[in-house]
Amino acid sequence: MSTRIERDSMGELEVPEKALYGAQTQRAVNNFPVSGSPMPSRFIHAIARIKLAAAHTNRDLGLLDSGRADAIIKAAEAVIAGEHDNQFPVDVFQTGSGTSSNMNVNEVIATLASREGVEVNPNDHVNMGQSSNDVIPTAIHVAAAIAVDTHLRPALVHLHAQITQRADILQHVTKTGRTHLMDAMPLRMDQELGAWASQINQAIERLDSAMQRLCRLAQGGTAVGTGINAPPEFAGRMAQHLSRQTGLSFEPNDSFFASLASQDAAVELSGQLKGLACVVMKIANDLRWMNSGPLAGLGEIELEALQPGSSIMPGKVNPVIPESAAQAAAQVIGLDMAITVAGQSGNFQLNVMLPLVASNLLTSIMLMGNTASLLADRAIATFKVREDNLQGPLARNPILVTALNNVIGYNAAAAVAKKAYQAGRPIIDVAEEQTDLDRETLERLLDPVVLTRGGIPE
Amino acid sequence: MSTRIERDSMGELEVPEKALYGAQTQRAVNNFPVSGSPMPSRFIHAIARIKLAAAHTNRDLGLLDSGRADAIIKAAEAVIAGEHDNQFPVDVFQTGSGTSSNMNVNEVIATLASREGVEVNPNDHVNMGQSSNDVIPTAIHVAAAIAVDTHLRPALVHLHAQITQRADILQHVTKTGRTHLMDAMPLRMDQELGAWASQINQAIERLDSAMQRLCRLAQGGTAVGTGINAPPEFAGRMAQHLSRQTGLSFEPNDSFFASLASQDAAVELSGQLKGLACVVMKIANDLRWMNSGPLAGLGEIELEALQPGSSIMPGKVNPVIPESAAQAAAQVIGLDMAITVAGQSGNFQLNVMLPLVASNLLTSIMLMGNTASLLADRAIATFKVREDNLQGPLARNPILVTALNNVIGYNAAAAVAKKAYQAGRPIIDVAEEQTDLDRETLERLLDPVVLTRGGIPE
Amino acid sequence: MSTRIERDSMGELEVPEKALYGAQTQRAVNNFPVSGSPMPSRFIHAIARIKLAAAHTNRDLGLLDSGRADAIIKAAEAVIAGEHDNQFPVDVFQTGSGTSSNMNVNEVIATLASREGVEVNPNDHVNMGQSSNDVIPTAIHVAAAIAVDTHLRPALVHLHAQITQRADILQHVTKTGRTHLMDAMPLRMDQELGAWASQINQAIERLDSAMQRLCRLAQGGTAVGTGINAPPEFAGRMAQHLSRQTGLSFEPNDSFFASLASQDAAVELSGQLKGLACVVMKIANDLRWMNSGPLAGLGEIELEALQPGSSIMPGKVNPVIPESAAQAAAQVIGLDMAITVAGQSGNFQLNVMLPLVASNLLTSIMLMGNTASLLADRAIATFKVREDNLQGPLARNPILVTALNNVIGYNAAAAVAKKAYQAGRPIIDVAEEQTDLDRETLERLLDPVVLTRGGIPE
Amino acid sequence: MSTRIERDSMGELEVPEKALYGAQTQRAVNNFPVSGSPMPSRFIHAIARIKLAAAHTNRDLGLLDSGRADAIIKAAEAVIAGEHDNQFPVDVFQTGSGTSSNMNVNEVIATLASREGVEVNPNDHVNMGQSSNDVIPTAIHVAAAIAVDTHLRPALVHLHAQITQRADILQHVTKTGRTHLMDAMPLRMDQELGAWASQINQAIERLDSAMQRLCRLAQGGTAVGTGINAPPEFAGRMAQHLSRQTGLSFEPNDSFFASLASQDAAVELSGQLKGLACVVMKIANDLRWMNSGPLAGLGEIELEALQPGSSIMPGKVNPVIPESAAQAAAQVIGLDMAITVAGQSGNFQLNVMLPLVASNLLTSIMLMGNTASLLADRAIATFKVREDNLQGPLARNPILVTALNNVIGYNAAAAVAKKAYQAGRPIIDVAEEQTDLDRETLERLLDPVVLTRGGIPE
Repeated sequence: MSTRIERDSMGELEVPEKALYGAQTQRAVNNFPVSGSPMPSRFIHAIARIKLAAAHTNRDLGLLDSGRADAIIKAAEAVIAGEHDNQFPVDVFQTGSGTSSNMNVNEVIATLASREGVEVNPNDHVNMGQSSNDVIPTAIHVAAAIAVDTHLRPALVHLHAQITQRADILQHVTKTGRTHLMDAMPLRMDQELGAWASQINQAIERLDSAMQRLCRLAQGGTAVGTGINAPPEFAGRMAQHLSRQTGLSFEPNDSFFASLASQDAAVELSGQLKGLACVVMKIANDLRWMNSGPLAGLGEIELEALQPGSSIMPGKVNPVIPESAAQAAAQVIGLDMAITVAGQSGNFQLNVMLPLVASNLLTSIMLMGNTASLLADRAIATFKVREDNLQGPLARNPILVTALNNVIGYNAAAAVAKKAYQAGRPIIDVAEEQTDLDRETLERLLDPVVLTRGGIPE
Repeated sequence: MSTRIERDSMGELEVPEKALYGAQTQRAVNNFPVSGSPMPSRFIHAIARIKLAAAHTNRDLGLLDSGRADAIIKAAEAVIAGEHDNQFPVDVFQTGSGTSSNMNVNEVIATLASREGVEVNPNDHVNMGQSSNDVIPTAIHVAAAIAVDTHLRPALVHLHAQITQRADILQHVTKTGRTHLMDAMPLRMDQELGAWASQINQAIERLDSAMQRLCRLAQGGTAVGTGINAPPEFAGRMAQHLSRQTGLSFEPNDSFFASLASQDAAVELSGQLKGLACVVMKIANDLRWMNSGPLAGLGEIELEALQPGSSIMPGKVNPVIPESAAQAAAQVIGLDMAITVAGQSGNFQLNVMLPLVASNLLTSIMLMGNTASLLADRAIATFKVREDNLQGPLARNPILVTALNNVIGYNAAAAVAKKAYQAGRPIIDVAEEQTDLDRETLERLLDPVVLTRGGIPE
Repeated sequence: MSTRIERDSMGELEVPEKALYGAQTQRAVNNFPVSGSPMPSRFIHAIARIKLAAAHTNRDLGLLDSGRADAIIKAAEAVIAGEHDNQFPVDVFQTGSGTSSNMNVNEVIATLASREGVEVNPNDHVNMGQSSNDVIPTAIHVAAAIAVDTHLRPALVHLHAQITQRADILQHVTKTGRTHLMDAMPLRMDQELGAWASQINQAIERLDSAMQRLCRLAQGGTAVGTGINAPPEFAGRMAQHLSRQTGLSFEPNDSFFASLASQDAAVELSGQLKGLACVVMKIANDLRWMNSGPLAGLGEIELEALQPGSSIMPGKVNPVIPESAAQAAAQVIGLDMAITVAGQSGNFQLNVMLPLVASNLLTSIMLMGNTASLLADRAIATFKVREDNLQGPLARNPILVTALNNVIGYNAAAAVAKKAYQAGRPIIDVAEEQTDLDRETLERLLDPVVLTRGGIPE
Repeated sequence: MSTRIERDSMGELEVPEKALYGAQTQRAVNNFPVSGSPMPSRFIHAIARIKLAAAHTNRDLGLLDSGRADAIIKAAEAVIAGEHDNQFPVDVFQTGSGTSSNMNVNEVIATLASREGVEVNPNDHVNMGQSSNDVIPTAIHVAAAIAVDTHLRPALVHLHAQITQRADILQHVTKTGRTHLMDAMPLRMDQELGAWASQINQAIERLDSAMQRLCRLAQGGTAVGTGINAPPEFAGRMAQHLSRQTGLSFEPNDSFFASLASQDAAVELSGQLKGLACVVMKIANDLRWMNSGPLAGLGEIELEALQPGSSIMPGKVNPVIPESAAQAAAQVIGLDMAITVAGQSGNFQLNVMLPLVASNLLTSIMLMGNTASLLADRAIATFKVREDNLQGPLARNPILVTALNNVIGYNAAAAVAKKAYQAGRPIIDVAEEQTDLDRETLERLLDPVVLTRGGIPE
């Protein structure tokens, strides 16, 4: 690969000839051959959004001439549009402040802007009024907020809608409930799916709550939180610009010192994603078990066949989407732990696990968003109910006798249940023999469909 | 120990003669010799609150006669008051539904109530209209909500007030900021403490948000969520009674099926406690490092001496309160992981890790509440500032040159910094030599106090 | 409560009149009202073992007179025997070095020893040649090693034996295997249980490996690891004495500095306990699912009925022991996380989360030991197999066609499977129709029992 | 992109025209648009190693003709050599068995092998005697074992050597020890670094122990562990071939059923990597704090300057390598949690979080290996000691008085310490005034260098 020579305060070094970045980026590339994974594009784009907002703000405040401002704005817009995603090679496991990524964006934008016929310096112009110490925490908040708003939340809303739609269609399906995995009182499939829908709905509520704190930004705190080298109006104007760009409601945090020194809002959001992962795991496992069989399992539903399940066993079809979802959930739980270790490790004026927090948080949002879509479209939307399998145990289930407690007393009810189970006979037949209740009354009292309404006639 | 014989559907067994509980409790005691730790009293009291509310509700609905209702109410009140805390011996590691703890409370209340001259049956009367499946999830929410409301939240408010008060007093103290642990631009101690205050404040906000979902109850869902054997008005009236008892705003959850099958609100609250633990860890570690020394450390503050620090080294005093706090934070992070494993493990209509969730959640709330009080009263309130130690590095700090960037340019500024650091001389002396700026101007520009205001003159 | 006045270098304070401990313990009680849980007795006993060994060692080295040594030895033996367990009230969340617990033991032993007619000072005599900094890490290792050796390991050996014994009895039971929860090739129940046995066996191997590093002690390092104030022979003699006391093979670690500054061996053991928890969770969940039903579940086994399962549903019996086990497993995973946070948090010469590590590690060992016993005796030993339920799906399972792959080719086999499944007919009937193979050959090839031997005739 | 049509049992689909893979791979690509991250190359290469070994084994057993065997061998070798790394696009979050990755390798090798003039079928020939159910667990073990053996272990050995070498050079540097972050007795820098070396050494021991169980393979168990469709000698021969290929000592596990149903060895290895992460975190944090300052920190060492530290503060240099290392450690802790969730989630005959386990385990090994190298070469090897800063506090440290305990008694020693600290005077001056000891004796007793040898004269 042909190279050119770049220079910074530490001396000269070689940079790939066509790279848009400069010495500081290259130094970081050389220093951090750790994971081979660069920072997520969403994060780079969020930094570029900050640069865009800063160019506007600095121009409006009379600190930056229009020529340079326009050039920076154009360059930043290209970066935001994803046109230069391959120009950000710095590893996730870099300096804990993310300074290398900030400088990477500064350098790329300066190079692009300089092509517009003005001289643009990465530090003096692109980074004007900013420090990595406020840019990076701001970028974490902005990138995560956009990812939740445009990717995860819509996917969850879609999943919720899909579950609700299937539930509506399945109101006529009654099945044996299970507590402790043991046969319990009956419920309808729309009630079962309704639980998932409620869980997803409240998970969205939680994300919305976390978004409030995520929208409070570090920008304006500069080096340690005092705002040195940024004018007093800077923070407010930056938040306004970023809000306008994204349609979100950003504002300066009440303490820039807290915004730099901690990652509390990221820890909160990650915790809520972990909670969502628990919901996804529950739904995925219910789907897997409902689909189990076809003969030696529960056999309640049949998930859409998406790929051959086995190279050795012909005809085997596996619940691959719920399995993918369960793994994504496990990963989000693990990434939350890494974010937690990061979140509890700050000292004095700066948390120095910022790139890790950024990368893991954005990964978790992406995993949950994509998983929600897959669950909605390739599992919830397409499974078939095996109604025959559900009917058999339903009517014979001795636990239905619970409904007779109030009529014949707990003890008499228990005796009926015991005999029915031992003889393997339908509960209604035994109850008819052992009680004074006639068949019609028993049919009414033991009707599983009525029981799913809490025993209340329609 | 002398015993009496009790009997249930599985036969006879021996119970301690004076025990208020009966056969089912004793069976659980025998079955679960696991941890030796019974369920927390707060949890038992919350179950008793449910029994109290249920007796009122059932009487009001005409399902329970006044004699029995009054007797149950009196007994439940005694349990809530902590008069029988030693009558609840069932281990945390019991049946996953917590049925044994529900029956333990049913049995103790039935025994106490029967002493009032009415015959009260644990299942038919104390448990009327309820199932363990809705009682236990409800008790987790109620117990945790009370513990947050009466214990943790006030402690955090107190900690916040204490920090703010100390910050106010310490506005005159300027110190060298630290990013990456390296000398950075100066800040005032009130700004540093203000970051902690802001973090605590937002942690309270997070708890308040979680409380909304915690106040949505499972009660009324009974066995699988359908509400079988409970009248339709039951859920609403129970929530009203519990609200009246506690001053909190309980309401029935929108899906009882979700309330039984998941522990999402507990996972959320635990996640927010984990986030609070990260805040506590940050504050504790800052205090520990500020206090480090007295000679070979940072030596910024002196924490109150609370106990001799070493049996072998005379005169050693250690930062024991922050150390206790840091361990409590680590424990809360660990307990959150256990709750997460529990939260992702539900199947179909019931999560069966409920006692674990209850115990860990209440432990975490208690740990954070007690820790907040200790930090407030025995660390924040009482540390002394070692101002002399702070002054030395402050004036000589070459990083102050940052303030000259806009006046003499980044490069000239860098040259000044470099020379000052190499020669170990005050930055102002070198700047006077190397620039055109006079002493007075430099004193103004490099005044650390002004720099803590972002370089803006008062 | 009546009190007496005690005094230490910080002044006077009140101590309960009959307490065996003195001022330093009381100061810690006052300083740390955090969890209400004192350190585990096993940990206190291990400290007493160190005091016992030190009295011997110091006497043998001529540093301590026989009168005092004998008195300390007698007192330490009483503490080890558990005679004074209520005299160690210091909270788990105390000074991070555990100094308060070391002084608690020093004070109690000094009080008891002084009753023998000699004057014994807690620091000068009981703590002679020691520092909390080496005593506490040593006590963690010694207490954990004893707990593994005498409690956990025997319980696991017993569980392994119980599983193996049931497996031997169940060699004749063939069932449908499940991969992805879907019907797969058959296996015998002894093979299924054999997997659990193998897992337990390798878990024991892992513990044995961790024990090697657990048996390397900090004792002799004293204050920072240099061994100041302890004679050079002290470390070796202490390890020998502790080995003699316990039958284990203790030795001084190769770096006392590492022993004080880190908790690597505790992190390792906790990690292996976490691995064991994964094994327990797997076994518990398999048992729960095998037991599921009786009608609407897998219905493969029937666990012993240990307690009524529901207050509302008569006749319900739940798999309470596996549920308890699963919760214990979740807790061990959580406690491991807390230990990990502690283990990664040391600075310079001392890790200051030692009491947390001690408490959590011993809790995890206890939980796993008790759980292993319960699983062995109340689940594995007593479940009944519901053989009828296993036979039905076994013969009809279309996946058995896998065995014909080598004879009729994958495609023809797949066609047979497809038709059998669609028609719900036994695979052998369809194969007879669709292939040239006669009934006898097919019976031989498709015999599930032969298939469980990898298709190899006996 | 131009495509071709491929077909499998589920019908036709489009595949990129030049892709070496076929329908099953493409189906998986379509089904799992989750993370965008394909399985790690190390994992793909390990599967190819299994195919290579299987071709040898099947030929040797007379099951596969030489033409096909040779073609498969050649193709597998090319894959192992990394020549086709871009042909394995299946996402990490795929079917839980990893079947899609197994089929991906089967298809690519079949395509390559078919170019040798023989017809090679992915299932019948490349997958002969195998099932995804034994191939994927085997590949996890083989890939991880190779990565530990060739990447991580050598890096740790190198780090250990580098630490030891620096320690040897720094034997003359004495510094103030720190316990609880407070000044304690002195130690030499070689002792401090020796603790790190010992920790790394024991971490290697732990990996070596885990390797024993990692080298026990699932291969030969095929579909559920019974070995159906594989000849009895297959397992042993496969292990021999893989051992010969790699220089490691693979053998069949004692229970294939356990190998398929659990991931215990992966959980163990991950747990040991988590333990190593704790060690790395300790070393990284010690380095960061030693390097802190230059003025307002501890200022004990100066890490090599690798890149400009701040865009806003000229001359700032940050400890970027330890920061990168600390983040890698946090990530490994998080990935271990994900592996733990996976490890505890298996049911019956198969764990279905295998791709997640594979990816995370290999990532953790890589992160720790690269981090060890960076720490060795860019932090340990190159830091400078700021000896002047260490000397000042050393001699004045009142804690040195500990050494007089045995001569003048604890109380007199404490009085000396107290006065020295209050007056800010050297301890030796105060001791000379307050005791009968002459200057020479005191110089001998209080010599920090002697104290680092436990007070023992050379």
